[in-house]
Amino acid sequence: MKVAIMGYGTVGSGVFEVLNTNKDIIAKKAGLELEIGYVLDLRDFPGDPVESVLTHDVNDIINDPEVKVVAEVMGGVGAAYKFTKAALEAGKSVCTSNKELVATRGCELMKIAQEHGCRYLFEASVGGGIPLIRPIMTALHGDDIVHMKSILNGTTNYILTRMSEAGAAFSEALAEAQQKGYAEADPTADVEGHDAMRKTSILASIVEGKLVSCDDVHTEGISAVTATDFKYARKLHAGVKLLSVISRENGRVSAMVAPFLVREDNELYGVKGVKNASLICGNAVGDIMFYGSGAGKLPTASAVVADMAEAAQCMAELSASKQVPAWTEEKADIVPFDEIKNASLVRVAAADEQAARKAFGDIREVAPVEGEFAFITAVMSEKDYNKAAQGLNVISRIRVDFKD
Amino acid sequence: MKVAIMGYGTVGSGVFEVLNTNKDIIAKKAGLELEIGYVLDLRDFPGDPVESVLTHDVNDIINDPEVKVVAEVMGGVGAAYKFTKAALEAGKSVCTSNKELVATRGCELMKIAQEHGCRYLFEASVGGGIPLIRPIMTALHGDDIVHMKSILNGTTNYILTRMSEAGAAFSEALAEAQQKGYAEADPTADVEGHDAMRKTSILASIVEGKLVSCDDVHTEGISAVTATDFKYARKLHAGVKLLSVISRENGRVSAMVAPFLVREDNELYGVKGVKNASLICGNAVGDIMFYGSGAGKLPTASAVVADMAEAAQCMAELSASKQVPAWTEEKADIVPFDEIKNASLVRVAAADEQAARKAFGDIREVAPVEGEFAFITAVMSEKDYNKAAQGLNVISRIRVDFKD
Repeated sequence: MKVAIMGYGTVGSGVFEVLNTNKDIIAKKAGLELEIGYVLDLRDFPGDPVESVLTHDVNDIINDPEVKVVAEVMGGVGAAYKFTKAALEAGKSVCTSNKELVATRGCELMKIAQEHGCRYLFEASVGGGIPLIRPIMTALHGDDIVHMKSILNGTTNYILTRMSEAGAAFSEALAEAQQKGYAEADPTADVEGHDAMRKTSILASIVEGKLVSCDDVHTEGISAVTATDFKYARKLHAGVKLLSVISRENGRVSAMVAPFLVREDNELYGVKGVKNASLICGNAVGDIMFYGSGAGKLPTASAVVADMAEAAQCMAELSASKQVPAWTEEKADIVPFDEIKNASLVRVAAADEQAARKAFGDIREVAPVEGEFAFITAVMSEKDYNKAAQGLNVISRIRVDFKD
Repeated sequence: MKVAIMGYGTVGSGVFEVLNTNKDIIAKKAGLELEIGYVLDLRDFPGDPVESVLTHDVNDIINDPEVKVVAEVMGGVGAAYKFTKAALEAGKSVCTSNKELVATRGCELMKIAQEHGCRYLFEASVGGGIPLIRPIMTALHGDDIVHMKSILNGTTNYILTRMSEAGAAFSEALAEAQQKGYAEADPTADVEGHDAMRKTSILASIVEGKLVSCDDVHTEGISAVTATDFKYARKLHAGVKLLSVISRENGRVSAMVAPFLVREDNELYGVKGVKNASLICGNAVGDIMFYGSGAGKLPTASAVVADMAEAAQCMAELSASKQVPAWTEEKADIVPFDEIKNASLVRVAAADEQAARKAFGDIREVAPVEGEFAFITAVMSEKDYNKAAQGLNVISRIRVDFKD
């Protein structure tokens, strides 16, 4: 079966490499050979093995009836959207790592795929190489998923790991991440949680089966986390993680991205550096965790190729018409952010101790650094927290995800 | 769609419970309702909700054409084999948690399923509720799996965790596990590694696509591990884990179950108590880990029900005739145990120091307990180890799985 790759950047060249290197294995496992017919890119790559299949014209792919499966690894929501739509309308399955496109247009594209007897698959859009979407959609068929707590951005996890282990300031750890190629020159999308937000929107939509858009995901980044916060974290035998938290209860869903204190007894504590992980709690299976490389050329390519193999098998053997789309256009019933409940570590000026005790009532004191008063609140809603914190000079507040 | 459950023990009653509790969710996700037509057990359960569908006669199930999917959760290889075979020959898909039957007769039963347009699924046979078999068979389609290192037996992991954390002797930790219901009165199958061996045989067969039988899995239990071994482990910032290690190279596969020293920097180190995990290394995806409850009524039932939902979807919509069986009868090319290479922690009497140095050459000394000499060997084959150890009074030897 002929396949095509749209985009020959990092992930695209990884897909090219994996399809070639593991050709025989894929053929054996999927029961058919995937032959690369075209690679689309506007650039030329003189001397690169891709040259013999390189094209600058997307119509070469769209108009070739032999091409049944396409990898869209261009990124962005402009040309990527246009080309994906055209490919699906031509009956070709599209497999992608493009989280932005999936988060914003996934619903529409899945519907087009369904109407044209093909598939829109996006395992690589969340958690890179970690099989996450497919297990949720198949292996957990018998479970009601109660919550999902995930580390979905390697850049921020690397920065937080360095702040924890080396006592580095945020700016130092960021500079180090940039130097190592883990953070971009403009790190905003990672550091402010936008990347994790898109992935959270996708996961929440799948788990709920209805649309949870990026706007529904309350998002806070890590740029306000300080070395002093980590001093407190160490006292509490905890680290700070940028968590994606999805909770479902009574037909409603809540989704947020924010820094959380995570203690040593939490499975996510050990997820260090650029690794990603997702801890899923089902009402039958209990807690299960998926862990691995959340980004990188070959891990991401691995997930794209697995989707391509599945789509190819599906196109060859099975009627795709009865595929249940991962989620529908129907808006999920979202818990207002004000109602989301967590405990928090709160640091205030020492002078505010009495005021804080009065405002928060039931607190657990934490040995403070000089000049501060610090405590962990009871589990309370965002609304109640804001009411209690009003008028206090809060130096920092980090939510905690402790088991007791 | 009508389904049946054969066996109303721990797992069977869990399957009954999950199918009832999550009825609506399963219907929504799988696109069809699973209605329990029969539960087979020789016992009576007066007053139990199962009563209305209880039967003592397997033919009620086999002869009912409306029953399309059957859960076999009886255990054993006698009646379970006979009933499974009869159900498959009647065109009914069978989903099971019976690792013994899968490990010994899986190949034959998958073939019968293929011939009769139905499926034999066994996600629950390895790793309880952890989705492991399905991700390997689908999500890792694009990868060449290089090795798999897994903790597949909760009982032994609980015992080793208690020995590590409480400094308990093996016999004490075993007694505690029995008291808590984690170990059976006759703990042989768990403690001597037979349970892990069966699961390793299944995983190795899937990964290799050819038969790796239980006889091909070199198996050592944990009954020889002592509190003193854990003293050494602590010095090395390590724990002792009963690992299932599957390695593939040059068209050959090796599989073993044995206690290994695992250091804090290893993802498997944090897998404590009755939890299970599998660390899979693919040539594209790198290291990924799956973690969760490896046993227990509801987690195991969750995996059985997920298989039932998949089989039901498959029977309803898809032709099963083109299913690629997980492995064929063809014998895998097994690496002889003598050739398997590992480093080991070796403890000998202090008087043997010079002889040990001479025999092993390149060693790393470990601070010993009184009266002993202890060291970590170079990575060497079992054959070379045995040659070097000959004539030495080895107090204990545990293989190590260190990253450097």
